Amino acid sequence: MDSAELLDLLGNANRRRILQLLAHKPCYVTEISEYLSVSPKAVIDHLEKLERAGLVESRVDDQRRKYFHIARNLRLEVNVSPYEFGTKSAYPASAVDVTTCRYVSIETDVTDDSGGGEATDLAVQLNRLQDLETELSMAQRWVHGRLTEVMEELTEQFEGEDSRLLGDVLSTLAAGSGTVEDLSRRVEAPPEVVGEALQRLAEEGVIVRDGQEWRLPE
Amino acid sequence: MDSAELLDLLGNANRRRILQLLAHKPCYVTEISEYLSVSPKAVIDHLEKLERAGLVESRVDDQRRKYFHIARNLRLEVNVSPYEFGTKSAYPASAVDVTTCRYVSIETDVTDDSGGGEATDLAVQLNRLQDLETELSMAQRWVHGRLTEVMEELTEQFEGEDSRLLGDVLSTLAAGSGTVEDLSRRVEAPPEVVGEALQRLAEEGVIVRDGQEWRLPE
Repeated sequence: MDSAELLDLLGNANRRRILQLLAHKPCYVTEISEYLSVSPKAVIDHLEKLERAGLVESRVDDQRRKYFHIARNLRLEVNVSPYEFGTKSAYPASAVDVTTCRYVSIETDVTDDSGGGEATDLAVQLNRLQDLETELSMAQRWVHGRLTEVMEELTEQFEGEDSRLLGDVLSTLAAGSGTVEDLSRRVEAPPEVVGEALQRLAEEGVIVRDGQEWRLPE
Repeated sequence: MDSAELLDLLGNANRRRILQLLAHKPCYVTEISEYLSVSPKAVIDHLEKLERAGLVESRVDDQRRKYFHIARNLRLEVNVSPYEFGTKSAYPASAVDVTTCRYVSIETDVTDDSGGGEATDLAVQLNRLQDLETELSMAQRWVHGRLTEVMEELTEQFEGEDSRLLGDVLSTLAAGSGTVEDLSRRVEAPPEVVGEALQRLAEEGVIVRDGQEWRLPE
């Protein structure tokens, strides 16, 4: 999928809301339609467009209900300035092997002292900045790919329907401990649901309770 | 401007083509209309939307002709995966002072050996990857801001209408020497025009000629 196709798809607010919903969990048409207050017909139209582009796929469950989920892993970058309008879409870069190095080191000293006068110096600087931009972009693609892999592994740690939620709650806790109310806000799920998830994570020995606060073990 | 507004604007192919054109040089309505084979009325509609969002501005020249140019400097990032649909738009970060350090060093070793078992480890990894993503994004914003500044300085080195073209040709040469034909392709301008620009850059002592090839001085 190229950037133009992706921008055409993302240029619609309801399609963006559908993707937002599917990023939380796989959904069926009626569910999406009710949650977004959009007619089922319109939801089906949007899903068809997203499916044709390969961004979304569906799977039929035991009750013969058709669930839609996001099927792609990609990044889009747009740069706008008086001198540039650049769009770039890319799949995660597993080819960039930054796993073997402990740091991504990127040279930011782009000044130069070649003999060609100020204009030449500036042109050389410009060129180095463009290289730096490409390197950072590659690093981002790697991070994006790793994030998805780790999220997948994390979800697989738990069984049952709420495995996604347990993964979300746990990764939120990793960013900082909190009460049920804090976490409910951060995960964007009702306190009752988050409370149950915390209880289950504690039973499995994954997290610990500290008064009103929940946190990862030390 | 938030990501939603920007995605709405960029969701139209003709608006993207107008921005692409304006990134090369300021243009007036008739010029855009002829170049894109789009009616002047439609061009005016698109320009109005872009102006209202502050993405484009106009200036009237001595002949009272209204020239449009890109007025903003921003970046948009979209991440799509089965677990994420995230959009982020941002202005260049001049606040990130990476000019004082020679390298951007970003820790990529996100593995952990805390005592909380596999799920806890994965949650910690996830959190570190998210931090890494934020750091890379800040670095990219800085690069984007610097690129625009350097391009501005470079354009100011030359007087007259073709200062933008001279800047483009020069920065292209910095990426690698080439013949008039090579450069014409890389700059996306006719060979005659690029040939004249090269001649002028050589007269000003900014570049040198080497047989059929043009290059920066050593």
